[in-house]
Amino acid sequence: MDHGQGRHAAVSGPVPAGAATLYECATQVLRRFREVRAYTEALVAPLSPEDCQVQSMPDVSPAKWHLAHTTWFFETFLLQPLLPNYRPFDPAYAVLFNSYYVGVGERHPRAHRGLLTRPRLNEVMDYRAYVNRAMEHLMEQLAPSAWGPLVELGCQHEQQHQELILMDIKHVLSSNPLQPAYADTFELQPLGEAFGWREQPGGLYEIGHGGAGFHFDNETPRHRVWLEPFEMATRLVKAGEYTAFIADGGYHRPELWLSEGWDLVQREGWTAPLYWQEEADGWSRFTLCGRRPVDPDQAVLHVSQFEADAYARWAGARLPTEAEWEVASVHGGLHGLYNHAWQWTASAYLGYPGFMPPEGAVGEYNGKFMSNQMVLRGGSLATPDGHARATYRNFFPASARWAFSGIRLAR
Amino acid sequence: MDHGQGRHAAVSGPVPAGAATLYECATQVLRRFREVRAYTEALVAPLSPEDCQVQSMPDVSPAKWHLAHTTWFFETFLLQPLLPNYRPFDPAYAVLFNSYYVGVGERHPRAHRGLLTRPRLNEVMDYRAYVNRAMEHLMEQLAPSAWGPLVELGCQHEQQHQELILMDIKHVLSSNPLQPAYADTFELQPLGEAFGWREQPGGLYEIGHGGAGFHFDNETPRHRVWLEPFEMATRLVKAGEYTAFIADGGYHRPELWLSEGWDLVQREGWTAPLYWQEEADGWSRFTLCGRRPVDPDQAVLHVSQFEADAYARWAGARLPTEAEWEVASVHGGLHGLYNHAWQWTASAYLGYPGFMPPEGAVGEYNGKFMSNQMVLRGGSLATPDGHARATYRNFFPASARWAFSGIRLAR
Amino acid sequence: MDHGQGRHAAVSGPVPAGAATLYECATQVLRRFREVRAYTEALVAPLSPEDCQVQSMPDVSPAKWHLAHTTWFFETFLLQPLLPNYRPFDPAYAVLFNSYYVGVGERHPRAHRGLLTRPRLNEVMDYRAYVNRAMEHLMEQLAPSAWGPLVELGCQHEQQHQELILMDIKHVLSSNPLQPAYADTFELQPLGEAFGWREQPGGLYEIGHGGAGFHFDNETPRHRVWLEPFEMATRLVKAGEYTAFIADGGYHRPELWLSEGWDLVQREGWTAPLYWQEEADGWSRFTLCGRRPVDPDQAVLHVSQFEADAYARWAGARLPTEAEWEVASVHGGLHGLYNHAWQWTASAYLGYPGFMPPEGAVGEYNGKFMSNQMVLRGGSLATPDGHARATYRNFFPASARWAFSGIRLAR
Amino acid sequence: MDHGQGRHAAVSGPVPAGAATLYECATQVLRRFREVRAYTEALVAPLSPEDCQVQSMPDVSPAKWHLAHTTWFFETFLLQPLLPNYRPFDPAYAVLFNSYYVGVGERHPRAHRGLLTRPRLNEVMDYRAYVNRAMEHLMEQLAPSAWGPLVELGCQHEQQHQELILMDIKHVLSSNPLQPAYADTFELQPLGEAFGWREQPGGLYEIGHGGAGFHFDNETPRHRVWLEPFEMATRLVKAGEYTAFIADGGYHRPELWLSEGWDLVQREGWTAPLYWQEEADGWSRFTLCGRRPVDPDQAVLHVSQFEADAYARWAGARLPTEAEWEVASVHGGLHGLYNHAWQWTASAYLGYPGFMPPEGAVGEYNGKFMSNQMVLRGGSLATPDGHARATYRNFFPASARWAFSGIRLAR
Repeated sequence: MDHGQGRHAAVSGPVPAGAATLYECATQVLRRFREVRAYTEALVAPLSPEDCQVQSMPDVSPAKWHLAHTTWFFETFLLQPLLPNYRPFDPAYAVLFNSYYVGVGERHPRAHRGLLTRPRLNEVMDYRAYVNRAMEHLMEQLAPSAWGPLVELGCQHEQQHQELILMDIKHVLSSNPLQPAYADTFELQPLGEAFGWREQPGGLYEIGHGGAGFHFDNETPRHRVWLEPFEMATRLVKAGEYTAFIADGGYHRPELWLSEGWDLVQREGWTAPLYWQEEADGWSRFTLCGRRPVDPDQAVLHVSQFEADAYARWAGARLPTEAEWEVASVHGGLHGLYNHAWQWTASAYLGYPGFMPPEGAVGEYNGKFMSNQMVLRGGSLATPDGHARATYRNFFPASARWAFSGIRLAR
Repeated sequence: MDHGQGRHAAVSGPVPAGAATLYECATQVLRRFREVRAYTEALVAPLSPEDCQVQSMPDVSPAKWHLAHTTWFFETFLLQPLLPNYRPFDPAYAVLFNSYYVGVGERHPRAHRGLLTRPRLNEVMDYRAYVNRAMEHLMEQLAPSAWGPLVELGCQHEQQHQELILMDIKHVLSSNPLQPAYADTFELQPLGEAFGWREQPGGLYEIGHGGAGFHFDNETPRHRVWLEPFEMATRLVKAGEYTAFIADGGYHRPELWLSEGWDLVQREGWTAPLYWQEEADGWSRFTLCGRRPVDPDQAVLHVSQFEADAYARWAGARLPTEAEWEVASVHGGLHGLYNHAWQWTASAYLGYPGFMPPEGAVGEYNGKFMSNQMVLRGGSLATPDGHARATYRNFFPASARWAFSGIRLAR
Repeated sequence: MDHGQGRHAAVSGPVPAGAATLYECATQVLRRFREVRAYTEALVAPLSPEDCQVQSMPDVSPAKWHLAHTTWFFETFLLQPLLPNYRPFDPAYAVLFNSYYVGVGERHPRAHRGLLTRPRLNEVMDYRAYVNRAMEHLMEQLAPSAWGPLVELGCQHEQQHQELILMDIKHVLSSNPLQPAYADTFELQPLGEAFGWREQPGGLYEIGHGGAGFHFDNETPRHRVWLEPFEMATRLVKAGEYTAFIADGGYHRPELWLSEGWDLVQREGWTAPLYWQEEADGWSRFTLCGRRPVDPDQAVLHVSQFEADAYARWAGARLPTEAEWEVASVHGGLHGLYNHAWQWTASAYLGYPGFMPPEGAVGEYNGKFMSNQMVLRGGSLATPDGHARATYRNFFPASARWAFSGIRLAR
Repeated sequence: MDHGQGRHAAVSGPVPAGAATLYECATQVLRRFREVRAYTEALVAPLSPEDCQVQSMPDVSPAKWHLAHTTWFFETFLLQPLLPNYRPFDPAYAVLFNSYYVGVGERHPRAHRGLLTRPRLNEVMDYRAYVNRAMEHLMEQLAPSAWGPLVELGCQHEQQHQELILMDIKHVLSSNPLQPAYADTFELQPLGEAFGWREQPGGLYEIGHGGAGFHFDNETPRHRVWLEPFEMATRLVKAGEYTAFIADGGYHRPELWLSEGWDLVQREGWTAPLYWQEEADGWSRFTLCGRRPVDPDQAVLHVSQFEADAYARWAGARLPTEAEWEVASVHGGLHGLYNHAWQWTASAYLGYPGFMPPEGAVGEYNGKFMSNQMVLRGGSLATPDGHARATYRNFFPASARWAFSGIRLAR
């Protein structure tokens, strides 16, 4: 999988954690496979063939491409190697819908995904149905040990693309002067909680995934880190608080910004988060439900890491490291960890000590994106249920704003 | 109208030539209006909503945009000013589908036309039907003197966009590795004729439009030019002849090229006309019928003016001036003037002596594009019947290759 | 020779006009050679090694490069082929100081001329002295028939570079916030004359060079053109008049501009000619004498052809064609033809009917630059005495502003 | 100070460590001031005014600018605030030679530093002498407590620029086809030592500067880190070893590269370190002594972090983190830490836990560059004696190659 500069859905080893259950219960996996596949289709149901076609910037992929690429994943990593006599739906798709797996062969240039008017949306839906049928066949024919972990990986991969579909279509629709709504859903809930700081004593902690459940390779190995004492905000930064930062000249005060962030502010003319617009009666923002007034009680969304960092400096605080975030999140007392906005950290996305990418094509590119990206933790309103967890490492360039990204302060 | 850097379909004055007939025969105009409008829709019939959505480079417009813009033209210049109580189909379209008429108001940025997934294709078709009905109503209600010339202008404008639809969709489809065909039509006929030179004595000639039929303002005023004796090729350059130029190192010999053309050859890596590809068994080219072998008897297509000029130098000849082309074409003996490929001339696109753009918004930009463009004369396989004429001035930047452009030599 | 997009100093044939005299009077040629060479050095006398080093944009060449390239010309086209046993000053210079003569071999990339800190300025001056001595030797040893025309061509070529040195160093110095003066010279004289229109009857005229004196190949062949009656302004447009255009919103009214010019105005933020700056008490402009207030009685300088064209439209007039300019200039009654500012015409720079570039390397690129450039006629305050004439064709892209370019109206 | 994307020479607090000694011994500081200032001038002695003028890419600054900027530092932070009645050498220099200190006022755009032909080199040398005299005056007049720490900071700042002068002039001279040498010095010594791995047990360590000597703020605070056991290579990677990586297809195997590095390899056409060229008889490299054959026993130089990382993967190892480097370096047994090449680490350049930038203009931008840069540790052949130390954090973007950067492996 890739998003923006590319994020990878990688399995942590030959047998994903949790597989034990899967082996015992093929029916359960099959049900999960059906649910995940169906949910992707439900997500694009409000969209026209035209909506699904467009790539509004190189980082964005068309919804049609997401639909096909997630299907290509099952075809490439399960059906082709495992199902005897499997005939690909269309051999050309191997190139068209490969994201970056060099080991698997050629790929269509990322920035030109929006030019592929053929296959049409309905042909891609046929492709999905064809692969779904073949997958059910595979799951019936072969022992679960052969496909359990890979099916789970394919489902996790598809869940990542479910969030990307929403991120990307939001960007596409926002480019239209008509400001059309995606649907009457995926609106942020207000942040009810009062603000507070929760203390965490210093000491030697363990972070990273060490258990049996599914996880990506970049969450491993579980390892020790030394932390100094710190405090973590119990809730996210609200839009109303961010508005105060703007009103206080936040976008006009170089002393609040990292040098590269300040260059961006000036070059791109940033004066507010992505999708915000100043109206006669205050700020509005583009949402998946169309353009709406900024609600001061919602989490601020669509800020870059540079904006998050400048806001934190303005507020007399800082961004947490990813280790602080993980430790604090499992020690309890924090609200809104997974269902409002991914939370920028002060940590660069790099391999954990002892990190080893798995062998083979499916894991070929596991650590490929560990440069010039910052880690986000938590989850957002667009993250599928059950997909996120305390050890999950999301990542984007510090300049990216089209993800559902927000701010949680530390000090 | 605009294409590439923008071409304008402009009327030559308050009453287009030929209007006299129109006034007498409103039925005839109505029939023409219906035919032109229907032909545009026939042209997009083979296309899916996805095909009609995409903009493969800034010079290209989506077919959907062409469908809407030609409709916007009738709404803006006829229905809104003339039809009492006319209610626009959607007021937002005034901005979305304006090409460049500053006098008419804001416009959507050209390079972002491909991002407009809404309105959908079927909504644009509804828009067309709505405007067609209102136009018929207008033509029934009002005296032909009020609308005759403008309807004809709108039809001519739409005919220009009919050729652009084909140029643009060819570029879109060519970007797809699947190399899909548009339809089984619009393939070049072979050039049957033997090659010859036709002599034209020198002297004082008149060029430009001076008669009563429809014409664009840039064809006027009719004026005198002095020409030295010259010879004009009786047919276009064939693909087979152009292949010989390639084989003789044409794209590797700087002495054949204008300096700017040579820079382009190197920077863009040109080795053949646009859409050509070298295969194991010779050259192929992408056509509206899909990828096909180069047929040596067809006219060479999709060359820039730099390539046409280099070819002419290699062949010991030169490109004609537009005055030479016009004079020779009316004196007879030339084949394939209007139905294979537009013919690059050696003339820059500038105003004729005494050229005066008409007043008002419809003529606001008549001469706006008279810089850094070269004139092409004739017509192509994609030019609607009856649209071209001896005085017609088409124009593109010397570097453009996606038009249906070819070569006729002079000396 | 080249400037900006590149202008070529080309000889019109094997024997430049005027050569007859040269053959009879080698002493006279020698004196001219010495004078031209010395004048170039006088021009750089006010400049430091640092000043001579810098290339402030790709179109600009460092003064040091001009000093070397004009010397390279004599070495390459005279000393090497004609002087027995001539040893080049430094063989590496053949590549470093070739401008674009492909037939002569490799060349250093234009945009990187400013990176050549070696050879140093004093080494280039040594190179000049070395070549001067060898040239004197050659002129003593060989019959004038062998070198007369080429020496004259080399002198004319160097004179073109003399103007370029001033254009280019002005741009370099203007980039410095200190706004240093080049010297206390090369300031425009006021335009004393009252404004008037001079009528020219229509008819068949001849333009182009047909006589015996020196001329470049692009001035030939002399040929007939038909002109309609027109009027030519007796003097150039003054800065004060141009200020009125600015004050009347000239840079904010799209209807006055060609489409491409308007795009430039917006993209580059043009609000006045190059080097102008609005001060508390009015406009100032950077001159070779430093920053000075705009003098309303001087010719306006440093406008692009787009600005000249927009100004003309605003003034209810137009730019002349080059044929009109040439015919009117020889019929008398026009002031300031050659000593204030080059005058933009409405003519694209293209070959005259029957134009044939001369054979061989010295003439290899004579017509290479005949694309996307507009003709200027006349001469400027920086043009060496005796260099310009009525048939002289200067040319630059319509967007260029760093030449000493101004406006003469026609109608 | 800034280099490339900008590095800052910042003091860690109001009184730099080591200041105690300085207070007691003003003479010693004065001597150090003189030595540092003189060494800078010695470094530019082999350079002409032309050499000192040029900026070969935006990341590079002209030597003349370095000479002036280091002087501006003393004028701005010492003479202006502390010396009564001090008159600036030239008030315009405040803008011209400010690197990025927003609190100090305007600054000249970085990419245009090479356009400043005035002041000339000799004027900048006069500026240096003028400021040196005033500084000596200040040190005589005022109590050391007022200036001791700031003079030391200015000297450290100037030492950083001493290395930049060498990096930058190397890039300038390498751009010249003549491949001129800077001098017959600054050539790498061979790496004599045999290769070995030194083991370091895991555990809780302290890193960062905690002592009394001079250090930059980014080295603080000293803090605990947990390290797993690791091994560190006892010497740097040799050019000969790197050549084996090239010969083994290192630049053609995507599986060895981070995704962003691979994109760069393809886009920039990298096939070897910067300054390397393949000759008929093997690799050569441009050095400060001119072009020379690659010596297999020297450290490989001028690799990006992407190349260092790919090499490490190819070699079955990895890059060390900066904490590993620092711990291992102080535990002994490592060769060539400070005098061959800076050593890329796997650590992003971020603030240490509890990092607080100092107050005021001199410390205004201390942490400004903590984004999208990677840490290098050690020192190079161009680092002034005594400037580097175990806790020193150098940093550049992962793509940068013009620094004196090399590779030390870990595992």
